[in-house]
Amino acid sequence: MKPDFSKLDGLIPAIVQDFKTNEILMLGFMNEEAWDKTLDTKKATFYSRTRNKIWMKGEESGNIQEVKDILIDCDNDTVLLKVNQIGGAACHTGYRSCFYRAVSDKDLAELKVVGEKIFNPEEKYGSGKK
Amino acid sequence: MKPDFSKLDGLIPAIVQDFKTNEILMLGFMNEEAWDKTLDTKKATFYSRTRNKIWMKGEESGNIQEVKDILIDCDNDTVLLKVNQIGGAACHTGYRSCFYRAVSDKDLAELKVVGEKIFNPEEKYGSGKK
Repeated sequence: MKPDFSKLDGLIPAIVQDFKTNEILMLGFMNEEAWDKTLDTKKATFYSRTRNKIWMKGEESGNIQEVKDILIDCDNDTVLLKVNQIGGAACHTGYRSCFYRAVSDKDLAELKVVGEKIFNPEEKYGSGKK
Repeated sequence: MKPDFSKLDGLIPAIVQDFKTNEILMLGFMNEEAWDKTLDTKKATFYSRTRNKIWMKGEESGNIQEVKDILIDCDNDTVLLKVNQIGGAACHTGYRSCFYRAVSDKDLAELKVVGEKIFNPEEKYGSGKK
């Protein structure tokens, strides 16, 4: 048996949570190859929908995610990774979490930054990356 | 502006987290109607991919989710709801969280129940519901 990859064209959502603080760091998608690789290496690995390829989180930035625990939901179609976030930040923008903005209205007119910025993305990736 | 519903056929994943304990309770999907309804009512509302319709979490069980905060990720394509879980359990199986089983291998051969069971689903929904 495997997680149920059938509902989302071969993908499952993978929630990434800090194993110490329980803060949500990001959400990625996995195909079966990314799932197997994550289990084999204990480093969070995803499938990029925009680049159409497997990527290990932190392969460029160094901010890898060491997988401490994996939980699966009641329908076997979503997983939750509890990780040790190397470098202290998951988001390519430099924030600790990708969820660094609070929403107060349905049209996203007033997004309020509530997260903590850990690094400067231009220094980390060079100016070529947004 | 709205969340980006284009990447997943009109849907976005919505992570649901307990606003006090930071425990992950479940993951649902929202279409634009479910998103608007969640913001209007402050009660977590999703789109069911299996039933092809909008549903408010708890409409049958009474275990509604009062939305305290909403965060959106860096790509505007995933949201995180911080909620007060009425009834103390989110999962239809009676567990507090849908993520009540730990995975130790990629084929899910040895799932270990680690979550807390709060109610008996047969008493809550009657024997007609799994």
